[in-house]
Amino acid sequence: MKKFLDEHFLLGTETAKYLFHEFAGHLPVIDYHCHLPPDQIAADINFQNLTQAWLYGDHYKWRAMRANGVDESYCTGMKNDFEKFEKWAETVPYTLRNPLFHWTHLELQRYFDTHEIINPQNAKRIYDECSEKLRSPGYSVKNLLRKMKVQVVCTTDDPADTLSYHQKIKQDQFEIKILPTFRPDKAMSVDDANGFNQYINKIEAVSNISISNYNDYLLALKQRHDFFSANGCVVSDHGLEHLYAEEYTDGEIKSIFQKIRSGNELSYEEKNKFKSAILIELAIWDWEKKWVQQFHLGALRNNNSRLLKNLGPDTGWDSIGDFSQGKILSRFLDTLDKTNQLAKTILYNLNPSDNALMAAMIGNFNDGSVAGKIQYGSAWWFLDQKDGMEKQINALSNMGLLSRFVGMLTDSRSFLSYPRHEYFRRVLCNIFGNEIENGELPNDITWTGKVIQDICYYNAKNYFNW
Amino acid sequence: MKKFLDEHFLLGTETAKYLFHEFAGHLPVIDYHCHLPPDQIAADINFQNLTQAWLYGDHYKWRAMRANGVDESYCTGMKNDFEKFEKWAETVPYTLRNPLFHWTHLELQRYFDTHEIINPQNAKRIYDECSEKLRSPGYSVKNLLRKMKVQVVCTTDDPADTLSYHQKIKQDQFEIKILPTFRPDKAMSVDDANGFNQYINKIEAVSNISISNYNDYLLALKQRHDFFSANGCVVSDHGLEHLYAEEYTDGEIKSIFQKIRSGNELSYEEKNKFKSAILIELAIWDWEKKWVQQFHLGALRNNNSRLLKNLGPDTGWDSIGDFSQGKILSRFLDTLDKTNQLAKTILYNLNPSDNALMAAMIGNFNDGSVAGKIQYGSAWWFLDQKDGMEKQINALSNMGLLSRFVGMLTDSRSFLSYPRHEYFRRVLCNIFGNEIENGELPNDITWTGKVIQDICYYNAKNYFNW
Amino acid sequence: MKKFLDEHFLLGTETAKYLFHEFAGHLPVIDYHCHLPPDQIAADINFQNLTQAWLYGDHYKWRAMRANGVDESYCTGMKNDFEKFEKWAETVPYTLRNPLFHWTHLELQRYFDTHEIINPQNAKRIYDECSEKLRSPGYSVKNLLRKMKVQVVCTTDDPADTLSYHQKIKQDQFEIKILPTFRPDKAMSVDDANGFNQYINKIEAVSNISISNYNDYLLALKQRHDFFSANGCVVSDHGLEHLYAEEYTDGEIKSIFQKIRSGNELSYEEKNKFKSAILIELAIWDWEKKWVQQFHLGALRNNNSRLLKNLGPDTGWDSIGDFSQGKILSRFLDTLDKTNQLAKTILYNLNPSDNALMAAMIGNFNDGSVAGKIQYGSAWWFLDQKDGMEKQINALSNMGLLSRFVGMLTDSRSFLSYPRHEYFRRVLCNIFGNEIENGELPNDITWTGKVIQDICYYNAKNYFNW
Repeated sequence: MKKFLDEHFLLGTETAKYLFHEFAGHLPVIDYHCHLPPDQIAADINFQNLTQAWLYGDHYKWRAMRANGVDESYCTGMKNDFEKFEKWAETVPYTLRNPLFHWTHLELQRYFDTHEIINPQNAKRIYDECSEKLRSPGYSVKNLLRKMKVQVVCTTDDPADTLSYHQKIKQDQFEIKILPTFRPDKAMSVDDANGFNQYINKIEAVSNISISNYNDYLLALKQRHDFFSANGCVVSDHGLEHLYAEEYTDGEIKSIFQKIRSGNELSYEEKNKFKSAILIELAIWDWEKKWVQQFHLGALRNNNSRLLKNLGPDTGWDSIGDFSQGKILSRFLDTLDKTNQLAKTILYNLNPSDNALMAAMIGNFNDGSVAGKIQYGSAWWFLDQKDGMEKQINALSNMGLLSRFVGMLTDSRSFLSYPRHEYFRRVLCNIFGNEIENGELPNDITWTGKVIQDICYYNAKNYFNW
Repeated sequence: MKKFLDEHFLLGTETAKYLFHEFAGHLPVIDYHCHLPPDQIAADINFQNLTQAWLYGDHYKWRAMRANGVDESYCTGMKNDFEKFEKWAETVPYTLRNPLFHWTHLELQRYFDTHEIINPQNAKRIYDECSEKLRSPGYSVKNLLRKMKVQVVCTTDDPADTLSYHQKIKQDQFEIKILPTFRPDKAMSVDDANGFNQYINKIEAVSNISISNYNDYLLALKQRHDFFSANGCVVSDHGLEHLYAEEYTDGEIKSIFQKIRSGNELSYEEKNKFKSAILIELAIWDWEKKWVQQFHLGALRNNNSRLLKNLGPDTGWDSIGDFSQGKILSRFLDTLDKTNQLAKTILYNLNPSDNALMAAMIGNFNDGSVAGKIQYGSAWWFLDQKDGMEKQINALSNMGLLSRFVGMLTDSRSFLSYPRHEYFRRVLCNIFGNEIENGELPNDITWTGKVIQDICYYNAKNYFNW
Repeated sequence: MKKFLDEHFLLGTETAKYLFHEFAGHLPVIDYHCHLPPDQIAADINFQNLTQAWLYGDHYKWRAMRANGVDESYCTGMKNDFEKFEKWAETVPYTLRNPLFHWTHLELQRYFDTHEIINPQNAKRIYDECSEKLRSPGYSVKNLLRKMKVQVVCTTDDPADTLSYHQKIKQDQFEIKILPTFRPDKAMSVDDANGFNQYINKIEAVSNISISNYNDYLLALKQRHDFFSANGCVVSDHGLEHLYAEEYTDGEIKSIFQKIRSGNELSYEEKNKFKSAILIELAIWDWEKKWVQQFHLGALRNNNSRLLKNLGPDTGWDSIGDFSQGKILSRFLDTLDKTNQLAKTILYNLNPSDNALMAAMIGNFNDGSVAGKIQYGSAWWFLDQKDGMEKQINALSNMGLLSRFVGMLTDSRSFLSYPRHEYFRRVLCNIFGNEIENGELPNDITWTGKVIQDICYYNAKNYFNW
């Protein structure tokens, strides 16, 4: 009987333990994609209690609470912080086998040295003890990052962002790199003419470029791209149901822009053409600047309109779609590759049914110019658990080179989720350990250890152009 | 070397054995979805031999026999019962690793205390021994249910059904609840105008409501819904390739009804609108009555038209489709949820590629009003085996709350398939046992045992409004 | 700690070892689908070095090298053979967990008795030693086949092929059957009018039948079909994204043929109708001749147009698509089955998300006339590894009869890939061994051994009509 969540957690063999403890566990963390709020880092805030750190903004926990019959007032509503925590503590024992059960207790251990299982009985004590720590200087958000040996954080930022917090952080000479990511989802959100025009107005204001036609719009967006670059950005990101790769002419796109800029809604075909055009423009800029472009594909968002209306986006009403991905993705990448303008690219899929498709797709555009140029990204969102990680690792192993994988990221809004890197490393070492012990891999610990270190740290360090 | 199918069958660890034998094994059975024939229960019949109990109506076994090169005359044809059994006995050894191999021998053990492996040599003896038992009073179908500690059975019934057998069973004060399920597939089968009109005539007759327009039709269907409710029905069920959620107006639906009622075939778009409308109406009635609505999604039916013509539906010509499920399912549930009229719902998918989609989808509509309001249903039909169950359990665990799962059902036409509940419980205990022993779950047997009991029995008991 | 790639490789239990070594390991090989070049067999060539045998034409290895950052000149380019091998040797250690790592070292062992792990240090020595062997008489390609106990090889051939090499091989009385496979992909490649007309000209020439209308075209194709049959062909094969099963009339097809024969491009609908018609014609000929027809479904080909233009097809730019398969596949099979003209059929899918669909689909058309008439084919291409094989075996086991499976094939262009049969057998024995030892299968070694031998050899021997 192995102890729950002890030092050998998830490590099923002696070899796995050795690989993790000797090679992987102590490496620094490069978190090349997350949603941490830069303003909180700039201000180096302290959370006032565990609810603020854990339950504000965490739709994973809200979904679990709702599924457990907890009223919305305890999730996003007006109950006080301890009342909310109590309901979460009631829910935790019901999350057995959900990744939240592991995350929660791993975070308690790593940040707070608390080795208990949360339940309604110990909820008050744990809340009080952790909250007290969180209010102390050693638990400011900068110190939370230091505690986890984070070296680089790439936040996720809209092109209209002034990046003032990133600048402040840099001016303060914070030794951990906090870099922006260019995430232009809204720059192509032409499904709603009114919202899109408001967004253009924001881009006009922040870029100081008047936008009356498509060329102006590209100029202004390019100004933002350059500005992000000047502020240390080396990576873009897109959240899409699927890629867009319609054929279009410049003339068409100019007319389409004029139409929506005049307040008219676009047809389905026009939307697709416009999105295709914008994606190609942005991808070429990424290639010119030697950025890495990321595509998060397959989320089916905003399913519950009643609660979305009350609570807004990113409050737990998103799930997994079954979009057709292959042909369009291929055409999009090929369009860029044809002229040799395909930047380093990471593809993430949310529906695990697409794992094999994605893992095989990257091979079509790995042209030998860079090791691991096109990446099949780590298991993401709903798949960010042992099962999902193993499946992504296996698909990549079977259809590509795991050894060239840039590895884990948090994709998180929380300062307390850095143990996910440790979790990933344990899963990875466990896989290698098993296969060495059962004779599927050679017992060459030096080489295997190097490969593991590459996946956990060095590949990412070398892949991004910081 | 573990013995085949002994008391610790499927239980790979000491903890799994303890969990199963102490907590799960002895619990009663709630079979909230199956296809048992109520007439046979009402008459409390005895089967005259093992072929009648096992091979009449079991398309799983027929498919295995056909794949094994057995002529149709031994499946659904004119051969005598023992000849059929002999061919089945020849086939059994070829079903190694197919769930039939496990089901068959588990059923022999649990119902007949026969611990042999069927083969052509012992076929005659097993047939004779079991058939003799089946003819004895202790093996009447009511006693078969009692033997398996069944407490509730929900059959599957057409709205046109008079429920006379259910009434008879109740009048006879059978202590096991045999309740109808409202399954209105034919009430929206507008793909064939003639068949649909014949069905309307049946509804007219049974409801005693003359149906000349759409309002009449709804009135008559509602009368059936009320009638089912009055007869103890608390659950509906739909068998669909995918959901339907087209926009429509009342006027459109009325015209569409008029068109088909006049004997005209509908266009593709009209069919979709009509199905969308009917589904919403029925779903609202379910919500009003606090029923649970079930959706079985993804079957590709009636593939073999030659043999379908000879043998009729449900004789083994159905399989698994790859329909697009996500967006329409989301829109359907959202349409109901918008006005807060979404009943408790169970979603079952037949293509395991949709597992993650389904497990994540339920979270969008779990609004905290009821624990486990929207359920991701148990592995179904082709997936009703160890591998399929484990995948469903894992998907639900990773993306939702396994602890709130209403668990297993038979979905079977056979009185001998109740050991599937035991099978499911073993699989479930095995999963928990493994993870406790390897340190992925705390060694808290009391809590884990409670969670297992909830999944095996209490969640279903509390979920349905009987 | 099990030794890497020792005699018990992939065999995790004593029972698995026994099953493999007593029953499976020594059986001859029937390779009923591959891409071996018949000219090389006819000439009984010797490769001059390991690069020629391993790296000429192997897009698996090229993809791995490109992903590892190796320049194209070392893959398909002008570097000399040893320079290419050196780059491959540098890449091998980075292929940990990719099937190439297993294939490579298994091939070194089985063909060359070399038990080392390739790395840059031993690359020169291994290259020299193996190349010397390859140049010796015992390593002619015929002897390579003999060494692996191959009994039958079905190559893959265009209808326009003269089969002169097959004839030469037969005249030379080579004791291993080298039979052609009728692969008429180009005979329905109507996506490009010019290419299609060139192809028709080739068929005209080789058949000596002038083709001015659709009837002529069918006559000429039928002549090729007959000619293949006369040369020992008993199997056809199709590589398709998905099947085609549109309704069409003879008149329509005749007009469509006239249109493209006159040099006009076809509409999307016309292409689909034409492909549907040709597929049905060919399938009926297959049925008439008692051939087995194979369908390889789901590849997304030629994704990288830049490198495709330079290097041509089959150089590593193909991957996995997510095409809709179910309804069309069902309709196609049903069209043939309706008139009882459905030949024995093997379905292969490239996207593992379709595993369950395929495994269930075959059951719809297994009508009892022949054991295992419709087959779910072995894991293919990107899925040809332990994980992919296990998933195919499990899907087939759960939804059909594994015992009737015709088993493994290489699908390879390389004379060195025959150990994949051994690999498959080990995976298969390991699965049975595990389940016998953990009590999921009876400890009946005689019967299990027979089933394993059937899957590894006898089922294929009996299934094909040679």
